[in-house]
Amino acid sequence: MRQKKNVTFDDIAKYTGFSKTTISRYFNNPDSLTLENQEIISKALSDLDYKENKVARILANGKTEFIGIIIPNLMNHYYSEMLNQILLTYEQFGYKFLVFIGNEHEASERQYIQELLAYHIEGLIILSFTIPSRELADSGIPVVTIEREDQYVCSVNTDNYMGGVQATSLLATHNCDILIHINSPTPPEIPSYGRIRGFLDICEEKHLNHRIIYKVFGNTYELIEKNLREILEELEISYSGQKKGIFISNDTHANVFLNLLIKKYGTLPDDYLIIGFDDSPISREAVIPISTVGQQINKIAYEAVSLLVELMNERKKRKPVPLKEPIHKIITPILIRRDTTER
Amino acid sequence: MRQKKNVTFDDIAKYTGFSKTTISRYFNNPDSLTLENQEIISKALSDLDYKENKVARILANGKTEFIGIIIPNLMNHYYSEMLNQILLTYEQFGYKFLVFIGNEHEASERQYIQELLAYHIEGLIILSFTIPSRELADSGIPVVTIEREDQYVCSVNTDNYMGGVQATSLLATHNCDILIHINSPTPPEIPSYGRIRGFLDICEEKHLNHRIIYKVFGNTYELIEKNLREILEELEISYSGQKKGIFISNDTHANVFLNLLIKKYGTLPDDYLIIGFDDSPISREAVIPISTVGQQINKIAYEAVSLLVELMNERKKRKPVPLKEPIHKIITPILIRRDTTER
Repeated sequence: MRQKKNVTFDDIAKYTGFSKTTISRYFNNPDSLTLENQEIISKALSDLDYKENKVARILANGKTEFIGIIIPNLMNHYYSEMLNQILLTYEQFGYKFLVFIGNEHEASERQYIQELLAYHIEGLIILSFTIPSRELADSGIPVVTIEREDQYVCSVNTDNYMGGVQATSLLATHNCDILIHINSPTPPEIPSYGRIRGFLDICEEKHLNHRIIYKVFGNTYELIEKNLREILEELEISYSGQKKGIFISNDTHANVFLNLLIKKYGTLPDDYLIIGFDDSPISREAVIPISTVGQQINKIAYEAVSLLVELMNERKKRKPVPLKEPIHKIITPILIRRDTTER
Repeated sequence: MRQKKNVTFDDIAKYTGFSKTTISRYFNNPDSLTLENQEIISKALSDLDYKENKVARILANGKTEFIGIIIPNLMNHYYSEMLNQILLTYEQFGYKFLVFIGNEHEASERQYIQELLAYHIEGLIILSFTIPSRELADSGIPVVTIEREDQYVCSVNTDNYMGGVQATSLLATHNCDILIHINSPTPPEIPSYGRIRGFLDICEEKHLNHRIIYKVFGNTYELIEKNLREILEELEISYSGQKKGIFISNDTHANVFLNLLIKKYGTLPDDYLIIGFDDSPISREAVIPISTVGQQINKIAYEAVSLLVELMNERKKRKPVPLKEPIHKIITPILIRRDTTER
């Protein structure tokens, strides 16, 4: 792995007797040489132990094979697993990833995008939600977003509506007295708003007693626990003795809610059914494994990179055809029944 | 943010009346120009709305400002939080990160390093453990490792020995009948072996009844739970009625062990004290918050990048002075007392 002295185009030209221009053509447009000459140069590279200088090559043909990623954080398991799956696509597509953490700072994220563009990245995958899709579409390179507002750019999202339908339908089979959906305030243009629509549609279709509780939960465990404790205390009073089917918008919150009940009762009482969303590891590892709507993160990541590669390839053609409309792919979620609904 | 037509050195030369060589010197060695001429060119760049082409600049001065990272996975919260903190150092140091997931495949990791070197990265941060430090030292660029075998390269690690001493000393204050350390088989050259030495030293110094249980736990939750259940069943028989102080090598395992006890008894029985390692979120969010030895991940990440930047800067000097010995920094861990030891 020791770095050798770099072999230059000059060296290769001297060794083969070709001009430097011919060597350059070999790297940037090999088909313009005869097969025989390609083979002579290929053999010379191996004889000279040539190490490709990709930076020089980028300058020659503009292909950096870099994709920029901006992700809000890696604390949330959904994001770290998504990044994990995106990085693993290197094996299939060969693109390298320059990664930035946005932490919801709009000005920083704008600066990161400028920095990435200065490095001639070929495409962008955006999971953070601070910069409007209108502005992302103007960046001049292909963009694919995941689970954020995506009106003007291509995207891959979970079928959130179907997920909401699945979770609510499962609770509905248990003859609950009341169905409750707990979520953060979510604007309708965000894909995850579909979970709320799915919940409402099933409740209305089946004429079920229902309620949505919106709350700003905060970003720390302590705040999330405090807010969920307040909700639990209110539910204990309002629906005492009633069978409660509770659909919580993510597994992290569902687990905190479950633990509050276990601290109080030593187990999950029979009048509570709980289902989360995401299929985070915590849903499986909880004291009582939590039913959930599983997002196919590996599939979402693969489809996002695959779609971006298509857009980048189109752009490299002599006469690229611009998209008339952004492409929005949706990936079906999977209902996972565990102990918090199956008793 | 729309990409404009690139302004070239030619354009700047024409606009200012300077030669292209002078413009090039402005970018690569500005101090070789007078302050007055620097200002003229600087104003021209702004007038022309010049967008820096970093790729061209890299080719001119060899400084890519790229650091490569190879990390085993992002499933383990320790790794995802470490990556998070490393990426955030962009704000201080300006280096960009090309990230690869190794997944413990030695051949892939070797290929990733070749790929990174082809892109003229300036330095490497390695958290994966498949490639011996002897080989990493031969890569020809500065390398800093975190928590892995590091004989021939610079590294930043937690003071694992001190962590083992802290955890064991805390259990020792509780007059346990037996102290038990549960860990995976760990070779002495790995930094985390210090936890085992710390445990043994305190037990021997204080003449405490003690035992180490080594077990290969596996990589899935199901395997980890199965293996810890077997350990628990054995302990329940071997030390029935005795007060057991248990130091578990990481918080993920400590949480699974705690949950097994809660499933069996509805709470943590008085004859069990538990302390983990890492201060992962799960230790705080467990049904009963778990005492732990906190790794200062933000500090480790900062020191690793900071040390790497020093090494990279030295290498850019006209007469770089090579290190006589690799530098190994250690960061003190912090004992965190929570409910599993304070009852």
